[in-house]
Amino acid sequence: MATAVSPLAVPLPELPPLAGVRLSATAAGIRYQGRTDVVMMEVAPDSTVAGVFTSNQCPGAPIDWCRESLKGGKVRVIVVNAGNANVFTGRAGRVSCAETAEAAAELAGCPATQVFVASTGVIGEVLPHAKIVAVLPALQSALTADGWEAAARGIMTTDTFPKASTRTADIGGVTVRITGIAKGSGMIAPDMATMLCFVFTDAKIPADALQAMLKAGVDASFNCTTVDSDTSTSDTVLLVATGQTAHPAVSPDGMLADFSRALDEVLMDLALQVTGDGEGAQKRVRIDVTGATSDASAKKIAMAVANSPLVKTAIAGEDANWGRIVMAVGKSGEPADRDKLSIGVGGVWMAKEGAVIAGYDETPVVAHMKGLEVEIAIDIGLGQGKATAWTCDLTHGYIDINGSYRS
Amino acid sequence: MATAVSPLAVPLPELPPLAGVRLSATAAGIRYQGRTDVVMMEVAPDSTVAGVFTSNQCPGAPIDWCRESLKGGKVRVIVVNAGNANVFTGRAGRVSCAETAEAAAELAGCPATQVFVASTGVIGEVLPHAKIVAVLPALQSALTADGWEAAARGIMTTDTFPKASTRTADIGGVTVRITGIAKGSGMIAPDMATMLCFVFTDAKIPADALQAMLKAGVDASFNCTTVDSDTSTSDTVLLVATGQTAHPAVSPDGMLADFSRALDEVLMDLALQVTGDGEGAQKRVRIDVTGATSDASAKKIAMAVANSPLVKTAIAGEDANWGRIVMAVGKSGEPADRDKLSIGVGGVWMAKEGAVIAGYDETPVVAHMKGLEVEIAIDIGLGQGKATAWTCDLTHGYIDINGSYRS
Repeated sequence: MATAVSPLAVPLPELPPLAGVRLSATAAGIRYQGRTDVVMMEVAPDSTVAGVFTSNQCPGAPIDWCRESLKGGKVRVIVVNAGNANVFTGRAGRVSCAETAEAAAELAGCPATQVFVASTGVIGEVLPHAKIVAVLPALQSALTADGWEAAARGIMTTDTFPKASTRTADIGGVTVRITGIAKGSGMIAPDMATMLCFVFTDAKIPADALQAMLKAGVDASFNCTTVDSDTSTSDTVLLVATGQTAHPAVSPDGMLADFSRALDEVLMDLALQVTGDGEGAQKRVRIDVTGATSDASAKKIAMAVANSPLVKTAIAGEDANWGRIVMAVGKSGEPADRDKLSIGVGGVWMAKEGAVIAGYDETPVVAHMKGLEVEIAIDIGLGQGKATAWTCDLTHGYIDINGSYRS
Repeated sequence: MATAVSPLAVPLPELPPLAGVRLSATAAGIRYQGRTDVVMMEVAPDSTVAGVFTSNQCPGAPIDWCRESLKGGKVRVIVVNAGNANVFTGRAGRVSCAETAEAAAELAGCPATQVFVASTGVIGEVLPHAKIVAVLPALQSALTADGWEAAARGIMTTDTFPKASTRTADIGGVTVRITGIAKGSGMIAPDMATMLCFVFTDAKIPADALQAMLKAGVDASFNCTTVDSDTSTSDTVLLVATGQTAHPAVSPDGMLADFSRALDEVLMDLALQVTGDGEGAQKRVRIDVTGATSDASAKKIAMAVANSPLVKTAIAGEDANWGRIVMAVGKSGEPADRDKLSIGVGGVWMAKEGAVIAGYDETPVVAHMKGLEVEIAIDIGLGQGKATAWTCDLTHGYIDINGSYRS
């Protein structure tokens, strides 16, 4: 179906070459016609890698493959296809991963365990990996340091715009770069599963330090967002350090503070782009919870509000419906006291201490609700815990995209 | 807005008088115009009562009132209004409950603690209880044993049909009757919060025995259903025994088996009627999970599938999308092994042991998906745990009802 570009789309940033990374994309006809659907990303030998994956208990075969490969801490090639998620495909799915990785490894001259694979698309159909293997030589020939946009576009499924982010950071007086691309349009899209994110840096950082920073960064970004509460079977975030820029060797503590800051910014930027391309999204929503009994409790409350269909449809209707927000706070099951609760929208408190504010003037709130970005503030009034979550509104577009027959 | 009657609507059953119960309804103009919106239900002196209420941590004032009154185990009058939920109304909400109950108690000649109140409708607006108090004398004058349909209609909000169920049961050779009415059209509807259910019997049963049977019956019926995963701030189920039919005194064990069976049937019938009137519902969905590691695990899996927006939109699109069902099983977080999982629809297994069945013929499944009732079977393949959940599909109608501005 034809889908309009999200009103929350942002232009692709300028993406300069990053030492040690070359990318290419091609059309293999996995599912789509007339567009690129297989991407190769090649990195310098001895590049280190970190990864975080879906918490879904029924993950796709590529997730199993990546988890196993991650044990080595090294990566040389990443092969991604769009159009088929290679999920719930039994033994055939494992064969697809292995044969794709082995073919790519032979071309790159590395062990198959240094090839990572990711797939996004329809669930439950056998991945025709021969089509991928067939285009690998052409992909390798086409690798270029300028291939970022091609890669960002090649991994899209129901995405309405390509997603990328780049930052620089200082390590011991030397500037390094961090660049990431991502795709995602529903935690799991129609049958087009998945959020995928690939982040690269030219810094030289051991795999264990990368892993710790990636885990923390993802917890604070992607794991605070939700489109529809449905957790993909294929979610993958990989962080690769090519080590191609000379900087003082990193020590266990301190030196990576600025790098970590820049990484967090890239991850958050990409997470917000994914949220802004949520299926049918017309508005992005930020939910700030304060005063909870703990940060963990605040996060559960924020996510309960972010996942509430009634809150999300109210936002689609530009209705600052704090009654539904109260309901969602209460259904989280976390400590909350109706009579200490305050709710605000767009910087205006609407309800305090369990009731609407006397003389509450809806005018500025109504104006805020008409915008593309909606901010909800919730003060629980019980403690110091705080958290922020991001989501999008729930519109007819979501039903259009997901309620149509898959073939 | 005008809303068509649900295709899953059922005709109101014949509701004979039940000894010790009289009902009436009137139009007090709480919010709606031109329809009844306040209901009185009066029961014989010394009637016993049991109740279960929402698990929402931010419940409405009437929930607090009922929980307190329930400690006495006795009821004489129930007053219900539609159009305003009296939730998040602070001190004013507590005053509304108390003044309504005191006025009804004075008319009935009973303590205020024997008056139960329930409210359903918009959240966060002060309940104009003076309008309720003003009509109480007229409601009392109009009380009649034939008032069941009037009561079932008077408690509706976004419901598209009135909901009632009746059964008979045998206690020690004597036939008693159980009749219930319910309303509900979203776990929480637009701003029209709530599922309410009132069940009456002419049997003579102590409050503690009533409470145990009600708790078990609700767990097996209402608590296995979901419309949109949003838990109302006002959900209330009351069970009242008037003791007006003479039967052998009930003993702690055994004698209530048939009564309990009939009660469970009434509760399940009403729960299915509520599910069939889910906002925008065009199909009802039954999800049977078997082979889980425990019954509790099976229930979590069944509810994860029942609450998945992607499963529900697929059903709206008449798409037997087992990929999304696999995803929902996996996101439940419960023990599951992709390679042991089987998925069936309409009595046909589509996928077994982690992959689609060889030679799977979609024809009978496609036909089943076009019907009003969709049955999903999930075998986890790990143990003996089983559970069933009910939900409805997620359609444009849900967005229409919930995405429009509230005033």
